[in-house]
Amino acid sequence: MSDNAITVPPEIANAIDTAHRIAVITHVAPDGDAIGSCLGLTHLLRNLGKDAIPVCQDPVPYIVNWLPGVEEFVRKAPADVDLVISIDLSSIDRMGDAYDAGTLGHIPLVNIDHHVTNTYFGHVNWVEPRAVAACEMVYHLALAFGYPITPQIATYILTGLLTDTRGLRTANVSARVLRVVTHLVELGAPIGEITELTFNRRPLAIVKLWALALPNLRVEPEGIIWLVITEAMRQEAGYDEPGDGGLVSFISTAEEAYIGVVFTEKPDGTVNVSMRARPGYDVARVAFALGGGGHPQAAGATIDGPLDTAVQRVIHALREALTEQKAARAAVPQPAHAGK
Amino acid sequence: MSDNAITVPPEIANAIDTAHRIAVITHVAPDGDAIGSCLGLTHLLRNLGKDAIPVCQDPVPYIVNWLPGVEEFVRKAPADVDLVISIDLSSIDRMGDAYDAGTLGHIPLVNIDHHVTNTYFGHVNWVEPRAVAACEMVYHLALAFGYPITPQIATYILTGLLTDTRGLRTANVSARVLRVVTHLVELGAPIGEITELTFNRRPLAIVKLWALALPNLRVEPEGIIWLVITEAMRQEAGYDEPGDGGLVSFISTAEEAYIGVVFTEKPDGTVNVSMRARPGYDVARVAFALGGGGHPQAAGATIDGPLDTAVQRVIHALREALTEQKAARAAVPQPAHAGK
Repeated sequence: MSDNAITVPPEIANAIDTAHRIAVITHVAPDGDAIGSCLGLTHLLRNLGKDAIPVCQDPVPYIVNWLPGVEEFVRKAPADVDLVISIDLSSIDRMGDAYDAGTLGHIPLVNIDHHVTNTYFGHVNWVEPRAVAACEMVYHLALAFGYPITPQIATYILTGLLTDTRGLRTANVSARVLRVVTHLVELGAPIGEITELTFNRRPLAIVKLWALALPNLRVEPEGIIWLVITEAMRQEAGYDEPGDGGLVSFISTAEEAYIGVVFTEKPDGTVNVSMRARPGYDVARVAFALGGGGHPQAAGATIDGPLDTAVQRVIHALREALTEQKAARAAVPQPAHAGK
Repeated sequence: MSDNAITVPPEIANAIDTAHRIAVITHVAPDGDAIGSCLGLTHLLRNLGKDAIPVCQDPVPYIVNWLPGVEEFVRKAPADVDLVISIDLSSIDRMGDAYDAGTLGHIPLVNIDHHVTNTYFGHVNWVEPRAVAACEMVYHLALAFGYPITPQIATYILTGLLTDTRGLRTANVSARVLRVVTHLVELGAPIGEITELTFNRRPLAIVKLWALALPNLRVEPEGIIWLVITEAMRQEAGYDEPGDGGLVSFISTAEEAYIGVVFTEKPDGTVNVSMRARPGYDVARVAFALGGGGHPQAAGATIDGPLDTAVQRVIHALREALTEQKAARAAVPQPAHAGK
């Protein structure tokens, strides 16, 4: 990963300059970076005198529901805008119902995204996979064009940056990223409060879900650690959000494990499989083979149930993949302290 | 908290200049900052041509046992040194058996520490409570005196700084601290690897302990969340380190809780009580009343068993304290987004 400066296409400033009413749309099932970048950009534009509207098909997730202004999101972009900016999404369908091509297809579309898989669907496309978050791109955009970053905007941007890097704990956190974080704090983003509200706070239902799910933890001798979350557990815990409440990340920290897996039973009988691998190992290929996707260290898929059959199938595939990967690693020398 | 520059007393450089063989001693029951600052300073001194020895009475804890050179620690400072530097400890007894006053009392002692409770027991005392970690002081010392910070030394310093700030998640993380972190990364500290080894890795025994302890989670209607760790659970999990394996921090994140408590039964029949409070609430006063100590947000005590009696006593005291604190808070307006 290069640590060089990130540059911003000047066409984006031109598009903004001539626009009056702008829809800023982020992706379905938004995460902290989607919400933070969308609100950050919206407020930058408003401070320029633009009429800017944050748009997202789905509700704001718990982790960032404390941000000021989250109630301003609308589910669908209005038809009377003269510019659409999409943020943090790699293909046009990721806007879901928020973007109606029938009414908006003729409006200029600026595509701002940090996913390497971006399909360049905009009239102007700024795709920067080196950015650790869409929020980092909003920061560079503001700096490049001289848009003022208020404390509130710095808060949006830093919140998204922190969530996409799991609190600066991902491998792509470089000196450049730390300089951005430092500057945002200097600009007034309250990093302590953001961290408290984003990382030190979860619904009691998640704690209860962990209490119900952890006792059935299983450890395979090869170094695969896994557990299941049944629909009954989710109901008993009162946990109605999607996802595993962070369980796969937690069990995967066990030093004895190369791979961690959580199987979550869904109401429709399918099974969500969420996998993590230590650096140096890979769960993406197994996820692809199961019809899912992801990165080497974090991948997933949704497969047919019932639960028992799904577990057997996935554990079998992971066992084979792990045996193969261990053999490949044994054939090349490994750097010191690079994990197991 | 001030964000002004931290200055280093020049007397420390004088003491180092005239010394040849230096014992660098850190505190009993060392944490990541103790080990990181002790090794960082040791290596700075060695690069100046000094014979420097890292000293600690107790073993290096799991969280930083991956650092290079941890095997060089000796349990007791040799008698033939001509300078002693204590690092990260507030009173002379915190060195335990590592410091023998009978043989070392006449040797110059430099006291470097960031605890506000420091007793100024050295011949030279540099106490800087604004520093978020003793490691931050080692950084400023190296910069002030022009001692070169190699990538290995930057790694020691950053590791201790990250552990004492729980991965930059404490309220004292300021722009100054972030500038230090950025510089250490620029100097070659591999922040991604440090984070992976320090925060994304724990013994399987801890995961098993959580699986055994979490099912007995209890939530009091007042907003106190608690559980017990019995000696039988610790044995079944195979967890033989002190502490609760992070459980009190985890359960205290539940949004519905103002206070979290973990009761750990000890082999001698006493009970360790570990408490956490949300910002704005205080568990230190209850800890003091129980004969323990700590800070408003994190405090603890060791009290008489049996477990049931200890639980009743503490929950009763916390209930009263919480009722009182809620009443006091209700009487003054609270800032927005400052938690409940």
